[in-house]
Amino acid sequence: MIVVLESGIAEKQIEDIIRVLHDHGFDVHRSTGMQHTVLGAIGVHPEFDHRQIELLSGVSEVVRITEPFKLTSRAFKPEGSVFDIDGIKIGGQEVIIMAGPCSVETEEQMFKIAEKVKESGAKFLRGGAFKPRTSPYSFQGLGEDGLKILRKAADAFQLKVITEVMDKSQIDVVEKYADIMQIGTRNMQNYTFLKDLGKASKPVMLKRGIAATIEEWLMSAEYILSGGNHQVILCERGIRTFETATRNTMDISAIPVVKKKSHLPIIADPSHGIGIRDKVIPMARAAVAAGADGLLIEVHHDPDHALSDGAQSLYPDQFSQMMKEVRIIAQAIGRNVA
Amino acid sequence: MIVVLESGIAEKQIEDIIRVLHDHGFDVHRSTGMQHTVLGAIGVHPEFDHRQIELLSGVSEVVRITEPFKLTSRAFKPEGSVFDIDGIKIGGQEVIIMAGPCSVETEEQMFKIAEKVKESGAKFLRGGAFKPRTSPYSFQGLGEDGLKILRKAADAFQLKVITEVMDKSQIDVVEKYADIMQIGTRNMQNYTFLKDLGKASKPVMLKRGIAATIEEWLMSAEYILSGGNHQVILCERGIRTFETATRNTMDISAIPVVKKKSHLPIIADPSHGIGIRDKVIPMARAAVAAGADGLLIEVHHDPDHALSDGAQSLYPDQFSQMMKEVRIIAQAIGRNVA
Amino acid sequence: MIVVLESGIAEKQIEDIIRVLHDHGFDVHRSTGMQHTVLGAIGVHPEFDHRQIELLSGVSEVVRITEPFKLTSRAFKPEGSVFDIDGIKIGGQEVIIMAGPCSVETEEQMFKIAEKVKESGAKFLRGGAFKPRTSPYSFQGLGEDGLKILRKAADAFQLKVITEVMDKSQIDVVEKYADIMQIGTRNMQNYTFLKDLGKASKPVMLKRGIAATIEEWLMSAEYILSGGNHQVILCERGIRTFETATRNTMDISAIPVVKKKSHLPIIADPSHGIGIRDKVIPMARAAVAAGADGLLIEVHHDPDHALSDGAQSLYPDQFSQMMKEVRIIAQAIGRNVA
Amino acid sequence: MIVVLESGIAEKQIEDIIRVLHDHGFDVHRSTGMQHTVLGAIGVHPEFDHRQIELLSGVSEVVRITEPFKLTSRAFKPEGSVFDIDGIKIGGQEVIIMAGPCSVETEEQMFKIAEKVKESGAKFLRGGAFKPRTSPYSFQGLGEDGLKILRKAADAFQLKVITEVMDKSQIDVVEKYADIMQIGTRNMQNYTFLKDLGKASKPVMLKRGIAATIEEWLMSAEYILSGGNHQVILCERGIRTFETATRNTMDISAIPVVKKKSHLPIIADPSHGIGIRDKVIPMARAAVAAGADGLLIEVHHDPDHALSDGAQSLYPDQFSQMMKEVRIIAQAIGRNVA
Repeated sequence: MIVVLESGIAEKQIEDIIRVLHDHGFDVHRSTGMQHTVLGAIGVHPEFDHRQIELLSGVSEVVRITEPFKLTSRAFKPEGSVFDIDGIKIGGQEVIIMAGPCSVETEEQMFKIAEKVKESGAKFLRGGAFKPRTSPYSFQGLGEDGLKILRKAADAFQLKVITEVMDKSQIDVVEKYADIMQIGTRNMQNYTFLKDLGKASKPVMLKRGIAATIEEWLMSAEYILSGGNHQVILCERGIRTFETATRNTMDISAIPVVKKKSHLPIIADPSHGIGIRDKVIPMARAAVAAGADGLLIEVHHDPDHALSDGAQSLYPDQFSQMMKEVRIIAQAIGRNVA
Repeated sequence: MIVVLESGIAEKQIEDIIRVLHDHGFDVHRSTGMQHTVLGAIGVHPEFDHRQIELLSGVSEVVRITEPFKLTSRAFKPEGSVFDIDGIKIGGQEVIIMAGPCSVETEEQMFKIAEKVKESGAKFLRGGAFKPRTSPYSFQGLGEDGLKILRKAADAFQLKVITEVMDKSQIDVVEKYADIMQIGTRNMQNYTFLKDLGKASKPVMLKRGIAATIEEWLMSAEYILSGGNHQVILCERGIRTFETATRNTMDISAIPVVKKKSHLPIIADPSHGIGIRDKVIPMARAAVAAGADGLLIEVHHDPDHALSDGAQSLYPDQFSQMMKEVRIIAQAIGRNVA
Repeated sequence: MIVVLESGIAEKQIEDIIRVLHDHGFDVHRSTGMQHTVLGAIGVHPEFDHRQIELLSGVSEVVRITEPFKLTSRAFKPEGSVFDIDGIKIGGQEVIIMAGPCSVETEEQMFKIAEKVKESGAKFLRGGAFKPRTSPYSFQGLGEDGLKILRKAADAFQLKVITEVMDKSQIDVVEKYADIMQIGTRNMQNYTFLKDLGKASKPVMLKRGIAATIEEWLMSAEYILSGGNHQVILCERGIRTFETATRNTMDISAIPVVKKKSHLPIIADPSHGIGIRDKVIPMARAAVAAGADGLLIEVHHDPDHALSDGAQSLYPDQFSQMMKEVRIIAQAIGRNVA
Repeated sequence: MIVVLESGIAEKQIEDIIRVLHDHGFDVHRSTGMQHTVLGAIGVHPEFDHRQIELLSGVSEVVRITEPFKLTSRAFKPEGSVFDIDGIKIGGQEVIIMAGPCSVETEEQMFKIAEKVKESGAKFLRGGAFKPRTSPYSFQGLGEDGLKILRKAADAFQLKVITEVMDKSQIDVVEKYADIMQIGTRNMQNYTFLKDLGKASKPVMLKRGIAATIEEWLMSAEYILSGGNHQVILCERGIRTFETATRNTMDISAIPVVKKKSHLPIIADPSHGIGIRDKVIPMARAAVAAGADGLLIEVHHDPDHALSDGAQSLYPDQFSQMMKEVRIIAQAIGRNVA
């Protein structure tokens, strides 16, 4: 922590501030410049509330210099994490595509979609069995029956399974059927839940909160890693801004920023990021071009009759076209898509 | 739902769009203007995803005209809700003040603070026993022991208790000790939890999500009301904007907006809204001036040694001064503070 | 500037970074902690682009410690500025009310409105003669004829005049008729214009840009002050956020923040801040409660037929009621409204 | 305009509202549903302030259905605009690259950079002669001398010239030297200036305001087109959001959104969009992948000694690498880069 003092401050006041820092357990280095005296407060207090110092009389500004996360930082693991899920490597040279409908509806639906996305090169089948909905009056998902259908369809086409888990009570059942557990944007700062996930045995894909800074997102990942589960994949899915032409503003720049700050893989969800079918493909291309390790794409064989989010689901033909395009784009940066 | 068609659209295409609307169960009223044909689609489909129509060829714009919430809307209860909690009326003519520390630390601490805030006119004692913290390495609260201390201190000074409940597993124990259960900003869209609260027996204070629109906030309240618990109090506590001079930007305008749209009482939490002690009082005054039904204020007898959020807690003397000021302000709009 | 180095950095690399800082003319203080080496770079380079250091290999973070503005900072003038405009003091103990229509339309209109706002206690008459409009097809103002009417109506009722100047070519003519020149939100970062205003002879009211941080706003004020015109009044009028229930989100917290950082007076414009008549009064009250030095309010004797912004203009009776309320609120903090 | 009335409204009140609409010159179509009566108000009033109707008693919501811009809309010119600037087509199949330093500093500098960017495939040379700077104490540009150098360097390497014009007084001189005049983000809503540009003879590149919605941006373009200058190129350069890890948040989704709403070409400026060199290339790739018609890139032969924005300027080698990558990406969508 760096404490910048007001210019013209009296020596007595400087000493008082140093004493307070000592009382909080900090070592203090003092450096006196022409205009400002600056104190470096050194100590191992990641959770220290620096506003306590900011409020002291004579203090002009306080700057935290240690990042609040450790296990998620690239400094901790400079080479980058690669997770091997039954032979599929996330975070490696290949860009991994995960696709499927918003909600699991019927076995017939899932088999149709699984066949299509497999054909085009997807490695994971997605589909929601527990649905968080803004309105209490909307379709809420099939529950465990949905998970069974999802697993069966994935297995039939040699796909892996990714699906959302919404709270602690669902972890056990979702772990039974899923290869990756997806954590929704609204749960990104549900800390008791994050701690539970830290004890889970399956990899976790942590979506960015709609209003979360990248630093807060990495702090939430830290909760899971510090609980013992090191297989965390980040997922950018759009942030809230003043622009209303799109449902969210997909923060493509988060991809290179996360790559620099953290060793964790990051994938992109353009379906939620943009929220309407006709602009999903350009955003999928942009995400791969920016360096994403994978894509999560909503695909439905009959979006007009989907029980949820049909409007942002691609038709299988569109998905196939998208795959052709991202395959070329991946090559531009020395990567590949199956 | 109003469906605005593109100008110059062919009659055949208009009929196709009308057919799709009929298939979704809507009655359609057609009105043809000079430039645009407009379809009014009437039906009882609060959960219908209007993007499905937006994507149809020939459609220029779709506008939802029924608000997605019902039980929370002022149309449902024009006179405004007043909740009577053991004789204290929230939403009535009196502006109710709730005060206390961020975290319950010790019995001695709680008694000292309870005495002070009671003296100045507070009606509720606040204090956290379960603490959601951004960092997994921070103080996480005393749990049920904290609740016992909180209740004891409140009873000793004839105060009511408000405290946060963080997930379903805590509802039973918090209901035992609290008069109002507070739901934190990060749980505002935790829908499974909101459903659980709909079955709870105690009133709920629902904080606004840091990136939630007012409409989304009222939808979350709808989850609780539709579950059977009609005693919901809203709490504005700051939203996330580009401004970094303050921790959040307190949306004072939400107070008159909510008052017009909903019958539910709304209180303000300037301590979290502004995040630093020296600006809490001006924001508390502003909230009362704008028509808030109450204030939630962090007060600590020794903020410099508080285990959490000391930097935004008022000293008892500051709280007493604030009370004097808001007492005069309330009179300016025909209300009063005890 | 504080330069935090990466942990584990080699001594050679540290020396390289220090050399670069020396080359840029900085004095460097080095302080070596357990985890981090921190360099304090001292020098008089307010315009130095700290990203140049941020990009050096081995640098973890760079923190600017001198605020980029000087003349506008409270450190420069701790007691606060009070501007005396023909006996009316802005920034003093009295809260100054400025009121009138959005646009000057006719002499009859201006006389009617001037009489009404004077009766209720306003000290300034506002009205636009040059109108910046989002659409090129909207009413663009009466120009100098409008200024003449405005001055005449103000003089007839012993009011002072505030009106907007939109570009350099209008400064001379506006100075002839106005007591304060108002700079619109879209011009806040029009730097060539700000320099011109630095040479103007009349006080300037600088509205906050819709997306400007408080620091950027003070930097823009610095442009005017550094040009020689020290009479700058700030005006908060709402910022752009994700919330769409109101036209802008009025940042009431900017009032206490500016009061702490700067000596310049700050007034509030709730008419633009909230954008719709029925919520102007609560926001006016909130601004005074938070410590604003004045209010700028749109009032029209016949808002339904106003040529612009009728929907956010108060009826004279509403203005009179607002004045009664803010008069009481001002007393709560030891101030007064005429 | 669609006017949704409150449910349960009396017939008398409906008639009053219809009368007001008639008085404003609207034709009214009434449609009565089960829950709501809806009025379609038809008329040619692009500038009508719909809040005037919103405030009428009995009105629940008002929805504007005609977009406020015409000449810029794709409906006006479905095939898309292509501007031919001396044989270089902007908006066509080729993705056009514009590159050069932030500021023109010396002839030697400009020749070095022009040679490098030409080699790698750029078609335009950029460089600022008039610099808008946040601080009044920063380097403000060389003025006309800078323009002469810029033109000379461009001509020497068969490049076209793009450079910023900051206000009306500079239009004549900039037109003498530039092929495209660039309008900065802070001038996007400087309407008097936009009108002047409507009469200019050279194409204009209009940068998006930092807080401008896409609709407002197109309205600003409308100002220029309605003045008679139809050659407007849009430029996305990042918007302001809550995220502070990047200087701005580049809104890549604006590219497909603008392509759908308007016929105007859109290019991307990742140097300002991301603000730091090491992330410019991923964002350049993303913009091309999303469908941008061109890129504006800051390149400097010696960024460490650049007089402005060195930290976001690419080294010539990095620019060359970027060109190789975007060349492949363009092919993925059937386009090419020279």
